[in-house]
Amino acid sequence: MKYGYFNDKRKEYVITTPKTPYPWINYLGNNDFFSLISNTAGGYCFYKDAKLRRILRYRYNNMPMDTNGRYFYIKDGEDYWTPGWLPVKKELDAYVCRHGLGYTRITSSRNNVKADVTYFVPLHFNGEVHRVQLTNESITTKELKIFSFVEFCLWDAQDDMTNFQRNLNTGEVEVEDSVIYHKTEYRERRNHYAFYGVNTPCDGFDTDRESFVGLYNGLDAPNVVKDGACTGSISHGWSPIASHEMHVVLKPNETKELIFVLGYVENNRQEKWESKGIINKTKAKDMMKQMGTSDAVSQALLDLEHYWQDLLSHFQITSHDAKLDRMVNIWNQYQCMVTFNMSRSASYFESGIGRGMGFRDSNQDLLGFVHQIPERARQRILDIASTQFKDGSAYHQYQPLTKQGNHDIGGGFNDDPLWLILGVIAYIKETGDMDILDEQVPFDCNPHDVGSLFSHLKCSFYHVVNNRGPHGLPLIGRADWNDCLNLNCFSNEPGESFQTYGDPDGRVAESVFIAGMFVYIGNMFVKLCERMGKEEEAQKAKAYVDEMYDTVIQEGYDGDWFLRAYDAFGEKIGSHSNKEGQIYIEPQGFCVMAGIGLKEGLAEKALDAVKDKLDTAYGIVLHQPAYTTYHDNLGEISSYPPGYKENAGIFCHNNPWIACAETEIHRGNRAFDIYRKITPSYLEEISDIHKTEPYVYSQMIAGKDAPTHGEAKNSWLTGTAAWNFITITQWILGIKPDFDGLIIDPCIPKEWGGFKIIRKYRNNTYRITIENPQHVSKGIKKIYVDGHPVDGATLPSEGTGKIYQVDVLMG
Amino acid sequence: MKYGYFNDKRKEYVITTPKTPYPWINYLGNNDFFSLISNTAGGYCFYKDAKLRRILRYRYNNMPMDTNGRYFYIKDGEDYWTPGWLPVKKELDAYVCRHGLGYTRITSSRNNVKADVTYFVPLHFNGEVHRVQLTNESITTKELKIFSFVEFCLWDAQDDMTNFQRNLNTGEVEVEDSVIYHKTEYRERRNHYAFYGVNTPCDGFDTDRESFVGLYNGLDAPNVVKDGACTGSISHGWSPIASHEMHVVLKPNETKELIFVLGYVENNRQEKWESKGIINKTKAKDMMKQMGTSDAVSQALLDLEHYWQDLLSHFQITSHDAKLDRMVNIWNQYQCMVTFNMSRSASYFESGIGRGMGFRDSNQDLLGFVHQIPERARQRILDIASTQFKDGSAYHQYQPLTKQGNHDIGGGFNDDPLWLILGVIAYIKETGDMDILDEQVPFDCNPHDVGSLFSHLKCSFYHVVNNRGPHGLPLIGRADWNDCLNLNCFSNEPGESFQTYGDPDGRVAESVFIAGMFVYIGNMFVKLCERMGKEEEAQKAKAYVDEMYDTVIQEGYDGDWFLRAYDAFGEKIGSHSNKEGQIYIEPQGFCVMAGIGLKEGLAEKALDAVKDKLDTAYGIVLHQPAYTTYHDNLGEISSYPPGYKENAGIFCHNNPWIACAETEIHRGNRAFDIYRKITPSYLEEISDIHKTEPYVYSQMIAGKDAPTHGEAKNSWLTGTAAWNFITITQWILGIKPDFDGLIIDPCIPKEWGGFKIIRKYRNNTYRITIENPQHVSKGIKKIYVDGHPVDGATLPSEGTGKIYQVDVLMG
Repeated sequence: MKYGYFNDKRKEYVITTPKTPYPWINYLGNNDFFSLISNTAGGYCFYKDAKLRRILRYRYNNMPMDTNGRYFYIKDGEDYWTPGWLPVKKELDAYVCRHGLGYTRITSSRNNVKADVTYFVPLHFNGEVHRVQLTNESITTKELKIFSFVEFCLWDAQDDMTNFQRNLNTGEVEVEDSVIYHKTEYRERRNHYAFYGVNTPCDGFDTDRESFVGLYNGLDAPNVVKDGACTGSISHGWSPIASHEMHVVLKPNETKELIFVLGYVENNRQEKWESKGIINKTKAKDMMKQMGTSDAVSQALLDLEHYWQDLLSHFQITSHDAKLDRMVNIWNQYQCMVTFNMSRSASYFESGIGRGMGFRDSNQDLLGFVHQIPERARQRILDIASTQFKDGSAYHQYQPLTKQGNHDIGGGFNDDPLWLILGVIAYIKETGDMDILDEQVPFDCNPHDVGSLFSHLKCSFYHVVNNRGPHGLPLIGRADWNDCLNLNCFSNEPGESFQTYGDPDGRVAESVFIAGMFVYIGNMFVKLCERMGKEEEAQKAKAYVDEMYDTVIQEGYDGDWFLRAYDAFGEKIGSHSNKEGQIYIEPQGFCVMAGIGLKEGLAEKALDAVKDKLDTAYGIVLHQPAYTTYHDNLGEISSYPPGYKENAGIFCHNNPWIACAETEIHRGNRAFDIYRKITPSYLEEISDIHKTEPYVYSQMIAGKDAPTHGEAKNSWLTGTAAWNFITITQWILGIKPDFDGLIIDPCIPKEWGGFKIIRKYRNNTYRITIENPQHVSKGIKKIYVDGHPVDGATLPSEGTGKIYQVDVLMG
Repeated sequence: MKYGYFNDKRKEYVITTPKTPYPWINYLGNNDFFSLISNTAGGYCFYKDAKLRRILRYRYNNMPMDTNGRYFYIKDGEDYWTPGWLPVKKELDAYVCRHGLGYTRITSSRNNVKADVTYFVPLHFNGEVHRVQLTNESITTKELKIFSFVEFCLWDAQDDMTNFQRNLNTGEVEVEDSVIYHKTEYRERRNHYAFYGVNTPCDGFDTDRESFVGLYNGLDAPNVVKDGACTGSISHGWSPIASHEMHVVLKPNETKELIFVLGYVENNRQEKWESKGIINKTKAKDMMKQMGTSDAVSQALLDLEHYWQDLLSHFQITSHDAKLDRMVNIWNQYQCMVTFNMSRSASYFESGIGRGMGFRDSNQDLLGFVHQIPERARQRILDIASTQFKDGSAYHQYQPLTKQGNHDIGGGFNDDPLWLILGVIAYIKETGDMDILDEQVPFDCNPHDVGSLFSHLKCSFYHVVNNRGPHGLPLIGRADWNDCLNLNCFSNEPGESFQTYGDPDGRVAESVFIAGMFVYIGNMFVKLCERMGKEEEAQKAKAYVDEMYDTVIQEGYDGDWFLRAYDAFGEKIGSHSNKEGQIYIEPQGFCVMAGIGLKEGLAEKALDAVKDKLDTAYGIVLHQPAYTTYHDNLGEISSYPPGYKENAGIFCHNNPWIACAETEIHRGNRAFDIYRKITPSYLEEISDIHKTEPYVYSQMIAGKDAPTHGEAKNSWLTGTAAWNFITITQWILGIKPDFDGLIIDPCIPKEWGGFKIIRKYRNNTYRITIENPQHVSKGIKKIYVDGHPVDGATLPSEGTGKIYQVDVLMG
């Protein structure tokens, strides 16, 4: 069952009913000001940090679901409604919601009034614009009243929902002309405020929630809307809101437009006040003026369109498969931008409280984003590396506002260091910018303790070398990529963090997964050293990598697949000898990606085992059999009901690793099949089962042990976005950035006859046509650049602004 | 304007409309299992700890306000309604809510169906009982369907509302017979579950919120109720709820009863399971059985009534003033029990997250509770003292579940130690139990570092002596009683805690308030030492107290009133020399209570200044003038808008100190006037202005600088309850427990002709009649005990079980 359709030309997903199985959302904003908006206009916005600087109040897990946002009540005689259906829920004569790139547009009608509301965050603008267009489709004049509504958060989202004994006394606002200023705590230490204004004089306003809504009313029936008149309330220490009353008279077929701006302003401390107690509104007025006309708003929307057009042009495919093309060309790249911006902080499943940017997460997210705006990836790399300790370990998370490591969770996730190497090398392969390795970067954010970025990578590499266990495999620490496999923590009391409980020092659980990563990423590190002319460094590192390769073969293979780990007592995890959790997905992916067991024939066996034991109609589950009871020597993984999350759920993030691994043994059909199963455009028809948005990846799909097998959760913020993007573009379609340029090396389903790619890379454009007349999965017969055959698979990348015509013949 | 009335005979407040200015609430439960319930049945319950072991989910600050609770939907044909009005909000033909002592009863009717629902927590029972009585008041048979509804919290209230990426996958339930078991995380480290059952077979059930309510519905219109049939849903990793469908056929005038039990069970780890994956339900079944019949429930209600009757019988007044009597005899004592149980953790204004039991709070709360159940006060004292450090300082808060000090806030609140002395002495004066002083009590919860309770008190006393500043006054540390006067912290960045920011070590701000406390409580400590035969200890302490007295006179008086403090730079706070904050309430109260300035004539001047500068129609504000801007050298106090909270609000807790002080200068009329202004029974008629419940004290009433002057907030959990109880009973009515027995020493309005008291004390009963024929405020002419005149004001207290007839003649 579908709830909408893709409009590929306009790069939109068009939702045709407000009653989607979950709220289906979109993100607005690209740099510092971000918004979440659902198909009923629910959601909130924040400046830089979803926890510390939240602008609108949102109530997660509410009844009704998703009832707070930016609403426009249309009062038409005694009737009133809201264009997004929620919160009033009056039946609409027409409804569509278009989620586009950086904007959302809701168009609906009732009683011959058409409302067309466009929400977006203009480029270089710290605020949302709400363009409201109203059309009278009847044959008589309509006298409408429009009531806007937003509810402000008192900035710190955690404090806002717990510290009432203080917060009920702090709310303050100002009103001037048609602009309502939310200035809670500006009187004290804050130097920022929010505002909500409209570009024409208003006929009334409210700023106090109780006056507008009524204590025992919901947003479905606010007092002011029922009564048809604002009260002019000024909020004092209760819940500040902003509502404008606008009288709109429309002749038949007439359209009128209102432009609302919901903005955020920071003032210098010296310039906080206009006069005693009156805030300095200069910047807000400038913002109101900047977006004050239809022309300005139209231009800003056009600028946004061009911005995305340019970004997406860095990778474009034309194939026989529209579902593939729309994911690669539009939605997967779009999601990669969002995951790069948000990490795991704020979505409809992530409350924006308690998790900042992840060290591991952010390094992976940039894999899918680096080709869009390499400069931002560069800055992110330096920010991340600054939180690393000198021994190579790292804070697991850091706060985006302060860029400081998060002490609550600390470090000890022993895969973290390696992801930094992968992220940096991906950046260098995209840009050729080896200079980044010489950047001086602090350790633990200490400006007096700095080293080159390369020295950070070396610390990362040797953190693994220096932390190996009894079998010579890497110590796992608190956890590796699988945050829920906690082999050294042994928590037995509720409320303890599975990850940070206990003292893993001296505990010797080892990870075959990190071993696979070490071989995969370590070999890249060796190449990097060679390229820097550090031959000795390279040889030394290579010896460690080769040693690890052998160790995995000897100690990390269980006969038919790679082991997952050894626990703190030296017992095998992910082995035939286990009763539950006999086989895990992660090491099969990363070990084969690293090439381990290829020549020994062990890789193919391992991947066959994955297919045999872990595959389902909806994707590959994390392990089998699921854990039916809790094991304190395994930790959080065994805390979930079977089939959910890490306990044998389809944790999408790791599925691409198997697809990549399959290309290593040239099984293109299987690789694409794995890709396709979790790719949302292919799941659109089963949206009633899948439930989350059909245009973005979700973190998890319930596994075969779950009663709700196939139901997805935690959409948007998942490393799946980046990994499935590089899986399809680099490992399957085979357009791989490398140190010296693009390499062409597809591994595709045999049935495919070919496809076309446009790739912008290092300031050149490659128009690549790949033909597969012999229907192979793998193998290049010949590559022609501008009509001339070239040796090897690497494309030239000299000069700038060149357009290369590349013709590739598989066979 | 009133929204109900007092029924003194039944000890109830009877609310006659569901549309109160705020939800008006009641508490159920006395020991480990507690519930909050509003006049519309909203609220939640928890076991011991409102943060860590929450049983029902509640949404604070929601729209509509207060929409989650224990609801019974009555489906009568196509119509449906809820007896508490919310959440359905169908108009009721009749409605009353009776908040009684430990129970709440909502009786309403619609369409000739009467519903009478009684909610209570039986004594020694870890659960709520909901007795639902339905009567057909029509002349035809009614076929009704009843749908129960509660929504479970996933135990940790903080995690429950932030950690969705995990929580949406963990929910689990079981259903057996008519009982729904909520067992989320029981599979792993928890050994407790909750259940909701009914005493007769049900006709259907739901356990999954989305199935019952519908994703985009509110609780005003759940799908199941609209459709008239439960779906039998089993919750899998989404929001677990419990709903029973009950078919009830009622003949004309027939009444039927259903008994629901919402319980909490802990099992030993060895006995967690009945069989693999099936929880051990033995205890739940026992609880269901225990409350399974009408007779059992009636008896449990009767037991509860007797329990309260006995507790309240320890202090009963009969006067000419019904408002006074109902506060002293019923509501103030009831609130004292609640503040003793809750500290500041869970109310409709305190979210139950982030604050445990306060060291200072709990010591004060027990002042108003110790006469009810001294044994519990004794245990609390030992718990509190165990969190003290050896230097006398203390954790500012501790968690009730673990009884460990709270590291987040730490210590450094330099008044904290003294409150322990006050609490212990209050306990001894009530009970005569000097043995408590020999109890061995840990320091910092370390069982290997213990000392007698007396040694703890000595540490408290000398913590002040050892921490004095440049003027010889006590150092204030992070703050004293006024948590918001932060003289050593200097926070300038939003998000920093005003209390814990900065390093106050070496900073020398001093508190005149603590000085007053030290003289007041220090003199008690001296007497205690004497009574223990520790003459040398007493003399040494007395010298320090006298020295402090002189210091206050010399350095702590500002000409017309007591200074509040010296800041970190040695500047005066609460002085004529200040522009704002010239006079503060707190030191005027405690210094005069300590007797400072009485003989010098300074006390009367100070209290006159309070009346002149701080008094208002609604109580005495904290200081004047209010701070109009933020001062980092003052801290949080200056962060609030003028008139709210500590920034010149009427912070009720400190008003009684002025009333007590007035009795020291024998101004009985003034003392009672101060008492009366903040006492809720006298505010019932202005409930529309006051807004909070007219039967309990609130923490704060907006001051004269606030636009909403007279509006109260933060009802129930405030030290005002204990302080105004001892103010009226001990300082005004003058029935003072002392080391040797009860002292009679009233200070009353001159107009009063007398009053009668029954006081149970040290296992005897005193029937006291006080007559004031000459209309004095103060002064005892003669006291007769059992007809015989006695010397002095101390009543005999020998033996047990005696009834003394005491006749007191003032004059």
